[in-house]
Amino acid sequence: MSPANVQSHQENAPAGEPSEGTATLAEIARAAGVSAPTVSKVLNGRADVAPGTRSKVEELLLLHGYRRRRGSTTQSQLIDLVFHELDSAWAMEVVRGVENVAREEGLSLVLSESAGRLTPGQTWVDGVLARRPVGVILVLSDLTAAQRAQLTSRSIPYAVVDPAGDPGDDIPSVGTTNWQGGLAATRHLTALGHRRIGVISGPSRMMCSRARVDGYRAAMETAGLPIDPALVREGEFQHEAGYTAGLELLRQADRPTAIFAGNDLQALGVYEAARELGLRIPEDLSVVGFDDLPLTRWIGPPLTTVRQPLIEMAETAARLVVDLGRGRQPATTRVDLATNLVVRSSTAAPGR
Amino acid sequence: MSPANVQSHQENAPAGEPSEGTATLAEIARAAGVSAPTVSKVLNGRADVAPGTRSKVEELLLLHGYRRRRGSTTQSQLIDLVFHELDSAWAMEVVRGVENVAREEGLSLVLSESAGRLTPGQTWVDGVLARRPVGVILVLSDLTAAQRAQLTSRSIPYAVVDPAGDPGDDIPSVGTTNWQGGLAATRHLTALGHRRIGVISGPSRMMCSRARVDGYRAAMETAGLPIDPALVREGEFQHEAGYTAGLELLRQADRPTAIFAGNDLQALGVYEAARELGLRIPEDLSVVGFDDLPLTRWIGPPLTTVRQPLIEMAETAARLVVDLGRGRQPATTRVDLATNLVVRSSTAAPGR
Repeated sequence: MSPANVQSHQENAPAGEPSEGTATLAEIARAAGVSAPTVSKVLNGRADVAPGTRSKVEELLLLHGYRRRRGSTTQSQLIDLVFHELDSAWAMEVVRGVENVAREEGLSLVLSESAGRLTPGQTWVDGVLARRPVGVILVLSDLTAAQRAQLTSRSIPYAVVDPAGDPGDDIPSVGTTNWQGGLAATRHLTALGHRRIGVISGPSRMMCSRARVDGYRAAMETAGLPIDPALVREGEFQHEAGYTAGLELLRQADRPTAIFAGNDLQALGVYEAARELGLRIPEDLSVVGFDDLPLTRWIGPPLTTVRQPLIEMAETAARLVVDLGRGRQPATTRVDLATNLVVRSSTAAPGR
Repeated sequence: MSPANVQSHQENAPAGEPSEGTATLAEIARAAGVSAPTVSKVLNGRADVAPGTRSKVEELLLLHGYRRRRGSTTQSQLIDLVFHELDSAWAMEVVRGVENVAREEGLSLVLSESAGRLTPGQTWVDGVLARRPVGVILVLSDLTAAQRAQLTSRSIPYAVVDPAGDPGDDIPSVGTTNWQGGLAATRHLTALGHRRIGVISGPSRMMCSRARVDGYRAAMETAGLPIDPALVREGEFQHEAGYTAGLELLRQADRPTAIFAGNDLQALGVYEAARELGLRIPEDLSVVGFDDLPLTRWIGPPLTTVRQPLIEMAETAARLVVDLGRGRQPATTRVDLATNLVVRSSTAAPGR
């Protein structure tokens, strides 16, 4: 063992850190034919380990179900938050929710973006292993099985803030009641007397899109209204898709008197399509959105929308992770928070 | 020296860390009558030092102009970003800019909010000293002289992303050309033929508000137009203030035919006031905003506004801090990026 190794090992195991888990670090080291400090380096995501050694150690950690024992002194005062992409209009809401909990808990928030990839890169995982946050919160990002195993063996808990509504089986996650939201939005429109109601779905690869449209179908069917396939459109969760689908829906001879958009940005696109066609909202067309972004209060007319409690979802996910990180087992690790309909001025009884 | 102290010291000075600055750590320790590891603990923001000892050491660090010598191994791969408050609509733009640079540089972004206080708390400073980021970026937040001295003695560089337009004398900062933006917005309106042009200022405590209104004055004067005090209003940079000021301006008998709002959110408030009074935009009223938030493209009609390059400002500040943190001296540490007018559909020649 070189002096440099001794020092690294001391650095990695300062006074107060409890000894490692059931399969001991020494046993892993012996099985891998390396020194204990080398295993320690792998655990800490350090770059100065040969790739071959590293993958061998990772395999053995997995094989032996190694779990680093948790102890407050081994954690940094950080909590990690990872986005698939930061440019979604609701990203700031999620950041604020996590930041609220971080501040309460005396933690600092580390924010990453997986740069459009659905799975964060290995560089990110190495960073997490090195900085040892209390926990990790993922937004619409997915981890590979190997990455999950890496976090698990280091006892770094994670949870998903899941507007997409499709977490893995055993992944702690916080979602929202997308189906009920679609139901409430559509019932509001049928109660106002609308019979031809268009719907714009988000991308069908996201479960939340399907759930919202299924809620729409349930409301239509229970109101005894037919579902005309010509009134169902699909597109990305962006303004542009709402505009395109809105034009398609509203240019039909027998156009809908109301549109339930997949989210608020799509609803803004519908506003633009209606303006272009000279249709007034809500006199000629009622519009309902989904999300309740701050800007929906400011547009003209203010948008009736289904509130998705993004800040609270992020807070709940952060609390879940902090609890797990501090060794408290939460009552449940799969939570759906309720949506609720916010009625503003973009909906009214049909004019004709 | 106790064994615990020895270990702490080794932990704080791993192999590869260069020795400390000109006034040595040992000299500071001798002057303070404490051990070198204790000074090291203070430098690293650790809690386990008596408050009296701590302030004595801080005083001596300041007195001796102590600078920890920079070396890549002493830094974490973190960069700190601090907001005064996260709920401003443009905060996400700044986050994205810093995140762009962080990703390029292999750094992770630590995000904090000073919870409405203009100055981040000591807890935050302690966290920064402990995690030793490459540098710190502040947005509209201010540091006390003591906090600045603490960062300086640890060789942690900082810069301000400064939409407020009022950095301290010697603080690296990135702003924008607020005066030129106000000038361009108003010239656009006078060129369209407007003569009675209202202006809503942001809060006068922020230099950017004053600069924008002064740009308005300059444009009015060079166009030979009088500045009617009845057409000048002031309010916070929020939708509500724009709405209130908009109503006041538009209810006047001799109402303005155009309004230059302090920012985009105020412009949205003016939209609402105009709607309420039955005034069409741009037929009855032209409106210009400031910032060019994404939502200005989606509202009806899309807003003519002065683009403040927030992402680029944040990127520039982040690069500045990374350069300083890696020992490269930038050519200048005070940068103003240019605004530019984006003409959309909310402005037209006056109808009367």
